[in-house]
Amino acid sequence: MALPVARLRELSRARCLELLGSTTVGRVGISMRALPVILPVTYAVVGERVIFRSAPGVKLDAAMHRLVVAFEADRYDPLGAWGWSVLLQGVASEITDAARLAEARGRLDRDLPFLDGEVARFVTVDSTIMSGREFGSVPAR
Amino acid sequence: MALPVARLRELSRARCLELLGSTTVGRVGISMRALPVILPVTYAVVGERVIFRSAPGVKLDAAMHRLVVAFEADRYDPLGAWGWSVLLQGVASEITDAARLAEARGRLDRDLPFLDGEVARFVTVDSTIMSGREFGSVPAR
Repeated sequence: MALPVARLRELSRARCLELLGSTTVGRVGISMRALPVILPVTYAVVGERVIFRSAPGVKLDAAMHRLVVAFEADRYDPLGAWGWSVLLQGVASEITDAARLAEARGRLDRDLPFLDGEVARFVTVDSTIMSGREFGSVPAR
Repeated sequence: MALPVARLRELSRARCLELLGSTTVGRVGISMRALPVILPVTYAVVGERVIFRSAPGVKLDAAMHRLVVAFEADRYDPLGAWGWSVLLQGVASEITDAARLAEARGRLDRDLPFLDGEVARFVTVDSTIMSGREFGSVPAR
């Protein structure tokens, strides 16, 4: 029995970036000792990259090893009328350049959800692969 | 510069299951051709397992190969006053038993977000590893 379902539309890169910029909590997907893990982060979009703070641990390790990670953000209407999700797959790296660090601090300067411990370090994920889908009428920001 | 941050509390398995039962959209993390991928799904909790519908593709492939996947759900206050996230890591498998299929259809019977195409098949993820964190005063459902 196939149910009626919302029509998903594939998104352009520009639309992906626009939607990514409309929320602040996303999730990083990493393989850790061959086990997939998903961790929520507070993020910002800088150019075509995503940046987030990281305490020492899985996410920072991935950045220091320049691993390819997944980054996902989504929003949806609880009643199912609309929704979107965007997925990045790209190399994670630590931000160490002074000018980029200052910019990152300016963009992620508040006490935000899902931060803990030592959060003075920043990770960026490039958007080598970016894809997204939406359905319904996603409200403007 | 270490910022003040919300205190994250580790969650018991019982609390993880309670929180998982309080929302309906989560995300599946899979390694696909060595690339991590995160895909949103509409889910339900049955016992200590998570179930979701799947069209043919990455998620169903993972289930048919009984891969270990990650499943994550979270909720948070947009102003940062509270939040939680729960992570499962377990084997994905397709539900084929008639009684369990009937139960799954009963639990995921509506036209819900992030479904597309042929969604008559169901996947379950066991909760071999379950962990979660919360901060602030998470409101009751």
